[in-house]
Amino acid sequence: MSQLFVRTLREDPADAEVASHKLLVRGGYIRRNAPGIYTWLPLGLKVYRKVEAIVREEMDKAGAQEMLLPALLPREPYEVTNRWEEYGPTLFTLKDRKDADYLLGPTHEEMFTLAVKDMFSSYKDLPVTLYQIQTKYRDEARPRAGLLRSRAFVMKDAYSFDIDDAGLETSYAVMRQAYQNIFDRLGLPYVICSAMSGAMGGSRSEEFLYPTEIGEDTFVRAPSGYAANVEAVVTPQAPEQDFSSIPESEIVETPDAPTIDTLVDVFNELRPRENDSWQANDTLKNVVLVAVHPDSTREVFVVGVPGGRDVDVKRVEAALGSVEVEMATEEDLAQYPELVPGYIGPMVIGPQSSRRSATEDGEERLPLRYFLDPRVARGSAWITGANKKNYHVYNLVYGRDFEADGFIEAATVCEGDMAEDGSGPLSLERGIEIGHIFQLGRKYANALDLKVLDQNGKTQVVTMGSYGIGVSRVMAALAQQYHDERGLMWPRIVAPADVHVVVAGKGDELYGAADTLCASLEGAGYDVLYDDRLKVSPGVKFADYELLGVPYAVVIGRGLKDGKVEIRVRATGEQHEVKVENAFDELVSFMKEA
Amino acid sequence: MSQLFVRTLREDPADAEVASHKLLVRGGYIRRNAPGIYTWLPLGLKVYRKVEAIVREEMDKAGAQEMLLPALLPREPYEVTNRWEEYGPTLFTLKDRKDADYLLGPTHEEMFTLAVKDMFSSYKDLPVTLYQIQTKYRDEARPRAGLLRSRAFVMKDAYSFDIDDAGLETSYAVMRQAYQNIFDRLGLPYVICSAMSGAMGGSRSEEFLYPTEIGEDTFVRAPSGYAANVEAVVTPQAPEQDFSSIPESEIVETPDAPTIDTLVDVFNELRPRENDSWQANDTLKNVVLVAVHPDSTREVFVVGVPGGRDVDVKRVEAALGSVEVEMATEEDLAQYPELVPGYIGPMVIGPQSSRRSATEDGEERLPLRYFLDPRVARGSAWITGANKKNYHVYNLVYGRDFEADGFIEAATVCEGDMAEDGSGPLSLERGIEIGHIFQLGRKYANALDLKVLDQNGKTQVVTMGSYGIGVSRVMAALAQQYHDERGLMWPRIVAPADVHVVVAGKGDELYGAADTLCASLEGAGYDVLYDDRLKVSPGVKFADYELLGVPYAVVIGRGLKDGKVEIRVRATGEQHEVKVENAFDELVSFMKEA
Repeated sequence: MSQLFVRTLREDPADAEVASHKLLVRGGYIRRNAPGIYTWLPLGLKVYRKVEAIVREEMDKAGAQEMLLPALLPREPYEVTNRWEEYGPTLFTLKDRKDADYLLGPTHEEMFTLAVKDMFSSYKDLPVTLYQIQTKYRDEARPRAGLLRSRAFVMKDAYSFDIDDAGLETSYAVMRQAYQNIFDRLGLPYVICSAMSGAMGGSRSEEFLYPTEIGEDTFVRAPSGYAANVEAVVTPQAPEQDFSSIPESEIVETPDAPTIDTLVDVFNELRPRENDSWQANDTLKNVVLVAVHPDSTREVFVVGVPGGRDVDVKRVEAALGSVEVEMATEEDLAQYPELVPGYIGPMVIGPQSSRRSATEDGEERLPLRYFLDPRVARGSAWITGANKKNYHVYNLVYGRDFEADGFIEAATVCEGDMAEDGSGPLSLERGIEIGHIFQLGRKYANALDLKVLDQNGKTQVVTMGSYGIGVSRVMAALAQQYHDERGLMWPRIVAPADVHVVVAGKGDELYGAADTLCASLEGAGYDVLYDDRLKVSPGVKFADYELLGVPYAVVIGRGLKDGKVEIRVRATGEQHEVKVENAFDELVSFMKEA
Repeated sequence: MSQLFVRTLREDPADAEVASHKLLVRGGYIRRNAPGIYTWLPLGLKVYRKVEAIVREEMDKAGAQEMLLPALLPREPYEVTNRWEEYGPTLFTLKDRKDADYLLGPTHEEMFTLAVKDMFSSYKDLPVTLYQIQTKYRDEARPRAGLLRSRAFVMKDAYSFDIDDAGLETSYAVMRQAYQNIFDRLGLPYVICSAMSGAMGGSRSEEFLYPTEIGEDTFVRAPSGYAANVEAVVTPQAPEQDFSSIPESEIVETPDAPTIDTLVDVFNELRPRENDSWQANDTLKNVVLVAVHPDSTREVFVVGVPGGRDVDVKRVEAALGSVEVEMATEEDLAQYPELVPGYIGPMVIGPQSSRRSATEDGEERLPLRYFLDPRVARGSAWITGANKKNYHVYNLVYGRDFEADGFIEAATVCEGDMAEDGSGPLSLERGIEIGHIFQLGRKYANALDLKVLDQNGKTQVVTMGSYGIGVSRVMAALAQQYHDERGLMWPRIVAPADVHVVVAGKGDELYGAADTLCASLEGAGYDVLYDDRLKVSPGVKFADYELLGVPYAVVIGRGLKDGKVEIRVRATGEQHEVKVENAFDELVSFMKEA
């Protein structure tokens, strides 16, 4: 410690909100260089390398072959697959001195596909799974939480190549198991969630989420154990209803109903229902969103959801694929004066708006499409906006009075919703994505023309999988999972050292005893962090021990005059006084028991 | 080999000129992704990692602490030290989504300086030496020779921080020894050359060069053993001469003297000298060069060297510091019509030209400075151009008839020149820079304000060293050093495997014997490359063995029916028939002897 390049901090860094971020900075594990860009300081690099080694070992055991591609990549392959554009501002791009376009790799499907195309030509060469452990670059709009969402991060990315779908299933299963082995060995809790494949394309996809309240991702769990990313939750289509007995729609003046709740109150007063009072879910809430296309075109559209739910923009985005979705701004709305905020109804949007558009004065604008949540049954009647301030309409029947452009998963998923598998109500939890496995299928192989000869001498397009683990993020997740208010509590398998030896007091005897113990431990192959700082008080040394989070400590202090030293276990707080001559053996037996 | 992601090539890649480049590509060690940007394929990554591990071990042994900085760096620190501009087009730069400037790190002096500034504050924290092993980025104008000059390359860069010059000397000596240990262990020949520090600034600097004919750098060796980069060769200033007996200068018509040789002939005919004929070194050759400043300003200047030597642009560049130097183009010359190509003389340049400039018609141009090689003695007389086609002047005396703006190391260093240390004639050799150690001094610490408190409680600017090894280049240098016309011949310490087991023939017995041998070897901790390909001929397998360059092979072929297998040593070509049951022991004893 007297020579180590580390300085611990007592104060939390100003930009840190989550514990792992605070503690990794305060413990001198990482240091910020720019937003979302960090240095691994010596202690951090040690922990990171241990995480990386476990990932590598399990990938190798699973038969994957390691290689290392450049991070600085030419534009062309990403142009062919359209990802140069699809990634949008998330892609770091640059030009070289000859004005050629390059990018910093956010993921490497294209480059691995080309490598296999270049080197392999026959079904006999397959299957093959290749991987690399590398710094990836994504220009996140809001980097946060230290290593949990950074702009330069280490990823283990693997790619499988198979001649047919059955082969892909097998390769996928092998990787899935390898991921379980990795997180099991690291001691990091995880949930395997069904996931949309989003911008990646392909058929099957699962996320490994570390469940934690600070997570940015929400996932659901069913009583059956099934888990899914909220974006992947499928809402059953509400069955068609008979509307023959529903009266004609009627417009009602509703002066004091700016919200769903007030609207329901107003209707219960003005138009009370016989059997049941009106509920929020009898209203149809129409929300104006914008799909931002990769070329920055903004397409305004409207989604209708039952009034008891909100719109989940991320679910809409996942459903739409390669666009970013956000709430419409005032400028967006200004293009559509027929949309009266708070009173938007279906009569001026979707198929209805197309009819109106024909009569417009010719100013060019994109058609205003209208999508409904699958909970909106054909034939169902709704209270909704009448497109005029202070007016609503009721008994407006979908399929009789208005049409839509289709259904979209738009509404929030709520605690207690019925699981898709019918096993009971869903619970909602938060997590951090630590791994992701995809069956890409033939998307990249088709785009980049990766074909091999099959058993019959015919060319076949290869089918692919892609498998990622955020290695640096996993390290942060471990810090998040294993900490208390005083500091980190590393699992030994990734700890920067096995034992922290603290000299708590003055005098050559104390340092002499510590030197001897450190030599024995190092001789036996244990990693030791030796706090040999002469002019630092025991209190500061204890605080640093607790902050740094090495799993075991030996404190050599006043007790030494009676032949005693103290063994401490960081995770449990246990303290054991042992004879100095037994310290080594006692410590080793503690470590073996754990 | 039946599953390994490798394909060997029989043809040299079209863009490869040097053996290491050809063989690393043909052997499936590396694959090109863009000019000067390569993938490490599985075999290449294995060799690279072994080189890296040795570098790391020796750095750790020397007490340096490993960390890892980002490759994507903010502009500001490089702005402060002026390197954002000085690096010019060699720097890869980009903007993030918020339009902030970033660069891909070509070297990290600034960032390490800031890390130490952030974390350390007292002389008690020093000395400290920090290092990282990382991909660096330099947009070379002419990437070539595969990994020898690439645009993304792995560098081990270390930085030492000391309170005083004596400390820096010690830190520098420790790193210098570590470098010798590294190259000694790797078996890579090297010469330690005194070097100019070029754009890095600072006081003392040495290059580790791997001597090879394909090298781009030229260095000199003196009989004493002293070696230096040609850029670092110091030419003694020629002593002042008495010119009192030299007649007035005279312009001579020289119709057929466009070159130095013809000029000498013409003077020997028209103005023969009494004691000795005129020689090339009696003429003063004036060469027009351009200093390209970091802001792209082109400054034309002239250097005068004895006619028996050429101008060495690299030496001029090293002498000038942070500019690029090149020969003047026609456009450059067009600005100075007084320069008559082939007949340029001092009377219109340097201090003489400034006098003339006053009478010019006011068009703005930079003053045309004039520098002399130190071999040009004050008081010496020369034959040189008269600034008029077909006319030369002689008896033109430096210090009497013309002046210059200073001296500069401009002339080529020649085989046989006297060594600076007087030990005898220099020999000239070529090499590749594999390591470089610098005493940076206080340049970066001053620029970035890195100060600590000294023993007396006063702030002191820290003094620094910087120490680089091109790790990927070292791997290529090893391939270059250890190859023959058939392929690579890796030293065992970095070989992708210890033993290459080749089944040369058909039948289960052969593969059974090979399986057993591979299992024994792997069980004993040896790395084995097993050529188990069923449908590949022995000829192809032997060619691949020789190309891939694993140091030892066991060939299991027809001899097995007589209980014999063959051990081959790649480097020597030795072949030994041994009993199959002794193969393991014999092989191990071969490997131990080596």
